[in-house]
Amino acid sequence: MPPEVTTPGSGEFPTDLRLAVLGGTGPQGRGLVRRFAMAGLDVIVGSRSAERAAGVAAEISESTGRSVSGADNLSAAEAGDIVLVVVPWDGHGELLQELAPALAGKVVVDCVNPLGFDKQGAFALEVPDGSATEQAAAILTESTVVGAFHNLSAVLLDDPEGKPLDTDVLVLGDEREATDLVQALADTIPGVRGVFGGRRRNARQVEALTANLISANRRYKAHTGIRISDV
Amino acid sequence: MPPEVTTPGSGEFPTDLRLAVLGGTGPQGRGLVRRFAMAGLDVIVGSRSAERAAGVAAEISESTGRSVSGADNLSAAEAGDIVLVVVPWDGHGELLQELAPALAGKVVVDCVNPLGFDKQGAFALEVPDGSATEQAAAILTESTVVGAFHNLSAVLLDDPEGKPLDTDVLVLGDEREATDLVQALADTIPGVRGVFGGRRRNARQVEALTANLISANRRYKAHTGIRISDV
Repeated sequence: MPPEVTTPGSGEFPTDLRLAVLGGTGPQGRGLVRRFAMAGLDVIVGSRSAERAAGVAAEISESTGRSVSGADNLSAAEAGDIVLVVVPWDGHGELLQELAPALAGKVVVDCVNPLGFDKQGAFALEVPDGSATEQAAAILTESTVVGAFHNLSAVLLDDPEGKPLDTDVLVLGDEREATDLVQALADTIPGVRGVFGGRRRNARQVEALTANLISANRRYKAHTGIRISDV
Repeated sequence: MPPEVTTPGSGEFPTDLRLAVLGGTGPQGRGLVRRFAMAGLDVIVGSRSAERAAGVAAEISESTGRSVSGADNLSAAEAGDIVLVVVPWDGHGELLQELAPALAGKVVVDCVNPLGFDKQGAFALEVPDGSATEQAAAILTESTVVGAFHNLSAVLLDDPEGKPLDTDVLVLGDEREATDLVQALADTIPGVRGVFGGRRRNARQVEALTANLISANRRYKAHTGIRISDV
């Protein structure tokens, strides 16, 4: 574990840890896989379909010149030291129930935004547990659950040239070692800082804020992100 | 009304409109009054107590060299062309019920964050209508309700030297003319841009995000704000 992070951007991510990205074949997951591979981290892509995972892994490997592997979500969850959950909200709970034994003892980073869409745009869905992060924590009682990577543009993440992003990642969790680690993971993406954003009980609004960014994207034809000022 | 705002920071606020700031004697309200007075706008401070309102108005007048007046909340609501609601969440609904006739036909800007505090810090309260902004809209059926000014540091706002803030204001509403106007109002504060953040149904998470900023403030000993990147 790295030393305690006292200012944003001051942590260092231990490169001997293996990352698994569940749902790594979706736009957001794929973008994160790309960026972590470009940062020289050891990444395994997880997907419902092992074939699809292998396909994306091969594409990212070729595009980045880094070795990335692919597997079904269960095998990826077993292989990862830190496991990112970037799956659709629909099915999130069921998948985590299934994977709970494989995720025990690990840091699990929930990146899921429970959003709905209609003709007026995006809106936040009601979540009985409060947020996707809290749902994950309720199910994965043997894991350390952190919420992060909610508000990044999938388009900007998946840029083959790896252009810096100009955005911060709010990291939410109740265990300091784990939030420090995930902040340091966010810091590996150029132009991104991991910023502590509070406990899991405050994850809901960070997940939901993606609906506001989507509204701003529509209005301004942009790929908006958030920066935290004065830190 | 100013022309349509197509990029953040492009609007101009019509200086012939009178602003009323209800709850203008609290830290946030007082800071907004100060900044709007410094911007040369016509501002009236509202408070439950007309005496307290007059006291703050006198202080801000002396400190800024601008004429600011004070009155009880009802008289201020009657006097204002645009009315900002910066009162405590506790009592928000009751006050707006009382003032509804005075606020009919006006743009009302709800700036209230329904937050709770315990030994673990700040957290978002459940709001039956979804958010303070939506509660205001449900009560003030004859007004045009916009949500804005949720995430600004009261300390930085109330700076007598008027130092620029380095933060954006997310503006939420369903009526374009009104959100454009409130964006232009936000633009009058140095270092601040009004940025469209979606419809009122997406106000909840912007109000609640203040709990995350408070968490970051504690961790980093800062007065954090948010910036929207790529616009």
